[in-house]
Amino acid sequence: MPLSTRISNNLIIDSNLIETAVEEEEENGQNAEVSNEEGSDSMPLTPTTPSSRQTRLARLFQERRRIVGRTVSESQLLAKPIANGTEKSKEAEDTPDFYEHRAKDLLPYKGGEGLTHKFLEEILKINLEYIDDTFERGSRVLEFHHPHDLKEKLHLEIPEKPENLDQILDDCRKTLQYCVKTGHPRFFNQLSTGLDIVSLAGHWVTTTANTNMFTYEIAPVFTLVEKATLKKMREFIGYTDGDGIFCPGGAISNLYAVLTARHKLFPSCKRRGLNNLPTLVMFTSEHSHFSLRRAAAIAGIGTDNVTFINTDQRGKIDLEDLENKIQQTIARGDKPFFVSATAGTTVVGAFDPINEIADICEKYKLWLHVDAAWGGGVILSRKYKHLVDGLHRADSVTWNPHKMMGVTLQCSAILLKEDGLLEDCNSMRATYLFQQDKHYDVCFDTGDKAIQCGRTVDVFRLWLMWRAKGTKGIESQINKLFDLAHYLVDRVRSKDAFQLVFEKPECTNVCFWYYPPSIRELEDTQEKQLRLHKVAPIIKARMMNEGRLMVGYQPLNDKVNFFRWVVSNPAASKHDVDYMLDEIERLGHDL
Amino acid sequence: MPLSTRISNNLIIDSNLIETAVEEEEENGQNAEVSNEEGSDSMPLTPTTPSSRQTRLARLFQERRRIVGRTVSESQLLAKPIANGTEKSKEAEDTPDFYEHRAKDLLPYKGGEGLTHKFLEEILKINLEYIDDTFERGSRVLEFHHPHDLKEKLHLEIPEKPENLDQILDDCRKTLQYCVKTGHPRFFNQLSTGLDIVSLAGHWVTTTANTNMFTYEIAPVFTLVEKATLKKMREFIGYTDGDGIFCPGGAISNLYAVLTARHKLFPSCKRRGLNNLPTLVMFTSEHSHFSLRRAAAIAGIGTDNVTFINTDQRGKIDLEDLENKIQQTIARGDKPFFVSATAGTTVVGAFDPINEIADICEKYKLWLHVDAAWGGGVILSRKYKHLVDGLHRADSVTWNPHKMMGVTLQCSAILLKEDGLLEDCNSMRATYLFQQDKHYDVCFDTGDKAIQCGRTVDVFRLWLMWRAKGTKGIESQINKLFDLAHYLVDRVRSKDAFQLVFEKPECTNVCFWYYPPSIRELEDTQEKQLRLHKVAPIIKARMMNEGRLMVGYQPLNDKVNFFRWVVSNPAASKHDVDYMLDEIERLGHDL
Repeated sequence: MPLSTRISNNLIIDSNLIETAVEEEEENGQNAEVSNEEGSDSMPLTPTTPSSRQTRLARLFQERRRIVGRTVSESQLLAKPIANGTEKSKEAEDTPDFYEHRAKDLLPYKGGEGLTHKFLEEILKINLEYIDDTFERGSRVLEFHHPHDLKEKLHLEIPEKPENLDQILDDCRKTLQYCVKTGHPRFFNQLSTGLDIVSLAGHWVTTTANTNMFTYEIAPVFTLVEKATLKKMREFIGYTDGDGIFCPGGAISNLYAVLTARHKLFPSCKRRGLNNLPTLVMFTSEHSHFSLRRAAAIAGIGTDNVTFINTDQRGKIDLEDLENKIQQTIARGDKPFFVSATAGTTVVGAFDPINEIADICEKYKLWLHVDAAWGGGVILSRKYKHLVDGLHRADSVTWNPHKMMGVTLQCSAILLKEDGLLEDCNSMRATYLFQQDKHYDVCFDTGDKAIQCGRTVDVFRLWLMWRAKGTKGIESQINKLFDLAHYLVDRVRSKDAFQLVFEKPECTNVCFWYYPPSIRELEDTQEKQLRLHKVAPIIKARMMNEGRLMVGYQPLNDKVNFFRWVVSNPAASKHDVDYMLDEIERLGHDL
Repeated sequence: MPLSTRISNNLIIDSNLIETAVEEEEENGQNAEVSNEEGSDSMPLTPTTPSSRQTRLARLFQERRRIVGRTVSESQLLAKPIANGTEKSKEAEDTPDFYEHRAKDLLPYKGGEGLTHKFLEEILKINLEYIDDTFERGSRVLEFHHPHDLKEKLHLEIPEKPENLDQILDDCRKTLQYCVKTGHPRFFNQLSTGLDIVSLAGHWVTTTANTNMFTYEIAPVFTLVEKATLKKMREFIGYTDGDGIFCPGGAISNLYAVLTARHKLFPSCKRRGLNNLPTLVMFTSEHSHFSLRRAAAIAGIGTDNVTFINTDQRGKIDLEDLENKIQQTIARGDKPFFVSATAGTTVVGAFDPINEIADICEKYKLWLHVDAAWGGGVILSRKYKHLVDGLHRADSVTWNPHKMMGVTLQCSAILLKEDGLLEDCNSMRATYLFQQDKHYDVCFDTGDKAIQCGRTVDVFRLWLMWRAKGTKGIESQINKLFDLAHYLVDRVRSKDAFQLVFEKPECTNVCFWYYPPSIRELEDTQEKQLRLHKVAPIIKARMMNEGRLMVGYQPLNDKVNFFRWVVSNPAASKHDVDYMLDEIERLGHDL
């Protein structure tokens, strides 16, 4: 009788018994290998090594705990059999012994349908457990281990011979066990937080569809969905026409903007390169995302030719400084061509004044890009869309629905006011992919617009989630995030131990310092700042070691390390905000 | 009683009855809205429009068909109730009425755990059906509709108010219904074919984990898995040290190669741009992938500065032509810096002679890149790895495990011989993400190497599949693909109606013409070529309309349209190869 069946029927849980069972099973496994003629040339059963035996033991305990119920104690688990062999559960009968099977037994191999179903059902179970844990406040956000420790806990090696499916399922369980739960209500560490169920469901559908976005030929539904969704997004921006494409993240969207702007102003560059052109110069706020500098490096423009504009006390671009620097650039004979305004800066959450910047761009005939990767979602909120007033005047917009809107990663778009430019800029007319003598309207083949060739289906999850929530649902979700940020601002203001870094946050980023008692009373000297600088990293380390919470920190210009709390997760509540402040105080009180 | 329960209990299938049921349900839905206080401010129930009612009717029929069994006829379905209300099935009792629920009832909303499980279980069912169909030869590869027709069949619009979960599930079903089954044994249309179950399982795990690769902080397991897998890949290449990263597709991997090469030779470019540098020139075969030209455009080098090298009759680079063109470039004062050899060209599947090209690169001190996006998999086969002899001499290698190795899309790596270069080239030292005062060893934060900021977890599926199959399993899979290609070559040679375009294919690409009887007997004139040119597109159109098979076609240089059959799907068999040839003959016989 196969081991896993026996375990779940008889509920043997004594560790000695399991040890014996594993030994028996190894023998059976070896016998099975001999009798298994098909495919035995290339896939003999993997011998169980001591370490994988330990894992298996550990996992059997876990497994058993799961069957009995999640609150059962270790001692209960170690109790003797609680059911006998005659009372076979339905579940046990239905569950194949994954230990006996390998990848070659799954589809497309003959007769693999049943096992494939069971295997993927088991994968679903593993995922569901993770999802439940994600939203359970009592569960940890992470179980932290240093890299060298974590390596020991995983089976990272890639073997010569196949592992059995039981081991593969265990790999998946372990992987999730040590993952950081980015959807946990107390994960405030990144701009992208949350785990939207409908979006996730859409993700599973597109991974199963396993196709490429480049042609209507092999992605008929998804190319149509992309067209419809981009149109909707452009309507919200206020474009009457235009174009766009989904890309692997906001950094790539920003790169598209730089490339398209360059092509619009210097179309010869595509063929002849930058060589005979003047030095091109880009302008963006000192608080803008680093991907703009990186885009300049990639495009051969050079990071020195990205001019940073000063910001005011709220982190917004200084318009006078912008115009001065444009004029200085012209005066020295270089060529300004591109201004990037930020709608929701990464750290502070500041919104640059788009209308005023657009005026300057019109005056000097510069391309206006708005990096709304983070803040783009506010367009859907009647209450907050004023933050991006003038957005329709931008020539291009980066908007990441995987941030404020909560779509699973990655889902980022670049949107353009002018139609045709994207294709003009990037097309290479590859005849093996974009044949012009196809029997359908090839304007639905979007691949020649992209800087990628193959491209994953990122739009579907956004579209599905948007349909499931409606614009109103997303609006209400976004408004709640702002409410939560306002609540935190009030709480920080009311507490002596905390201080806001920026007095009036515009977005759902709230930046603050925590002053431990020993620092709080000090004179305001450089020594105090230096001590304060060390506080956040230590609290963060303690926080991660305990694993109940995650908030990011960083310095910014002359400001020493501070916490940046940020939320895009509808699971978070005021209770979680209070918990966060209490925890920081508890973790840092002694510093 | 909610409709869906009633339907599955009583098995009402008469369309009038369903029509009545839908009407009743609408009334109930409206009542439900009134009584539903929580969240009703932002998410009222969507009224059922006529078109969504029709869809619901159609779906109920489909649903019923699925319950009864997949071979049941329409007339059987229309029969009167076959079970009565007292015989409630377990399934019916367990299934919630998704029509009554919306996204707001799922997690993280209070009490949403049960519904979330049921919803995702339903998503699994939908996926499993698609997977079963994918591997069933009797099922169609696609159900083709022209874009304007397909638009009518989908509900593309994004609504103001939320759709119910029943509609969302229906959206998923319909999406898959009209998808092209890229894993079907008769889908020979792209380099990436197949649907690997373990890889898919891994994909579901990473979508649930929903994290970003940029830091160990939020992707501890995945950054370790990436490190281990890249190391293994470099070992196979023959690098003793080095670096690498996973990227969104081979085009981006090739871009990395160009950027890194430029940085190695002209490190000042990162800061100061291309302006004061000589004209940089790249060299690659006329059969190479278009992404190299695109990389030149992106990098500001310009497509005119990509020099194409002639190929021989097998599609391999002409070494004399390469050296001549390098010398000509130097002679005119431009700066050769980069040669890309291709290991498995896109159309023909040719392998450029790497060792000989490496000699030339050493002589002229040029960066040698090998684009092994397609052919990289052969490294795992002792029988075919000779095709990439000399690969260890390359400075960089693009290798897409989503192609020949069969990992689900996308999974592409750029591998580098020299460690540190990638970070040198791309790092921007963003302090909000890559703080140097973290409590763990920050060399595990890989994000500053990337040209992206956020980056999806593409490596896990490769790692999991590789563990599940072992190197031996993948080797055996790849050898079988070659066997199949050799079988097709023999079949084409044995048939008068077919002719190979390239006599001795090196990879699993087989290019051939089909000559309908009316063309076969013609004199070999330009007229014959022009008529032949039109054959493949017509056959392809007919093929797609019938939906039983997909093979790509294209012209190449002076060669008129021909079919490119290509396989990376272990599900395909000799029988499918025969079927393909027979079908082409049947579909094109009258032309």
